[in-house]
Amino acid sequence: MTRVVVIGATGLIGASVAEHLSQRHEVIRSSRNAGERVDLSDTDSIGALFERIGAVDAVVVAVGHAPWGTVQSLGREGYLAGFAEKALGQIDVVSQGLAHLRDGGSFTLTSGILAVEAIPGSSATAVANGALEAFVRICAGDLPRGIRLNIVRPSIVEGSPQENLDMFAGFPPVSRHDVALAYQRSVDGIQTGRVYEVV
Amino acid sequence: MTRVVVIGATGLIGASVAEHLSQRHEVIRSSRNAGERVDLSDTDSIGALFERIGAVDAVVVAVGHAPWGTVQSLGREGYLAGFAEKALGQIDVVSQGLAHLRDGGSFTLTSGILAVEAIPGSSATAVANGALEAFVRICAGDLPRGIRLNIVRPSIVEGSPQENLDMFAGFPPVSRHDVALAYQRSVDGIQTGRVYEVV
Repeated sequence: MTRVVVIGATGLIGASVAEHLSQRHEVIRSSRNAGERVDLSDTDSIGALFERIGAVDAVVVAVGHAPWGTVQSLGREGYLAGFAEKALGQIDVVSQGLAHLRDGGSFTLTSGILAVEAIPGSSATAVANGALEAFVRICAGDLPRGIRLNIVRPSIVEGSPQENLDMFAGFPPVSRHDVALAYQRSVDGIQTGRVYEVV
Repeated sequence: MTRVVVIGATGLIGASVAEHLSQRHEVIRSSRNAGERVDLSDTDSIGALFERIGAVDAVVVAVGHAPWGTVQSLGREGYLAGFAEKALGQIDVVSQGLAHLRDGGSFTLTSGILAVEAIPGSSATAVANGALEAFVRICAGDLPRGIRLNIVRPSIVEGSPQENLDMFAGFPPVSRHDVALAYQRSVDGIQTGRVYEVV
């Protein structure tokens, strides 16, 4: 049985992924406030997490928010905040987790439909998602020891707050199970540098 | 005749773009060390540039570098530096330039082939380029007054230092003229949210 750490395991997506993967893997649940604690805005906290949990076969990260607004209201600080909150923490997990990942292991990160679809005020989210997807596509070939790197791009998920569903009017909500299956394809599969879209 | 400011006008690409566009437009050349000075790492410097030059019909930005290295050697700081140096300054130009752009005007930013192609050590560049391309695709629809937003994704350019050409072995160098034409298609065209690839 392989060891998988799911970071963001209390979130709507992360909880489903952790539950689904636990059918076939030993799952370590990690989040800011429960399980193995980690704060992705704090690089030392990420290093400490990997030191505590030891070697793993797969790392899944399902976290991240970015601020909303127009290009004028967000300004430099808004885009930087979104990048730092959503993209940089996930990238840092790869940077530091690499030494703790067994040969042939995998990282699976999370972007979102707002990488490629626009709704009003979503451009800071797009910046973070676009950064993450390009990171995965381009960095995958740079990883050693057969380690793979993929990302899941989910659309709005069933069970999201009504306010969020309303913002995504016209986007069919996807089931949490279908989203969890995409993470499984990454963890249990053989591909790397892939964006697994769930729409 | 329309007024176009080219930021990065002393660079290999920016100089060609400025020269080409000057056939049909009044071109204001701007860069860190010549012409209308601007430092894209300094948000106040960007605001001051637009105050000095007054209303324009088009803004072209052709600047930006990111550090090279593996995901481990770059770490959180390396990816943040690349994002700040290449992506954030260009986004800030849009944030602050919007108020100085005439109705129906355009922004044209610059990513690069490393948004979609990988060479060893290029993942911080990919992060910045991916962030910029997603910004353009998603933010374009959020802009007021018929203002357009596009980005040019050039491959390695003829006339680059031999060291750079060697890093891109197998990539046919593109002519500076062809790259300048892509910027012209954005400035003189009617499309928005486009990535103009030059390969």
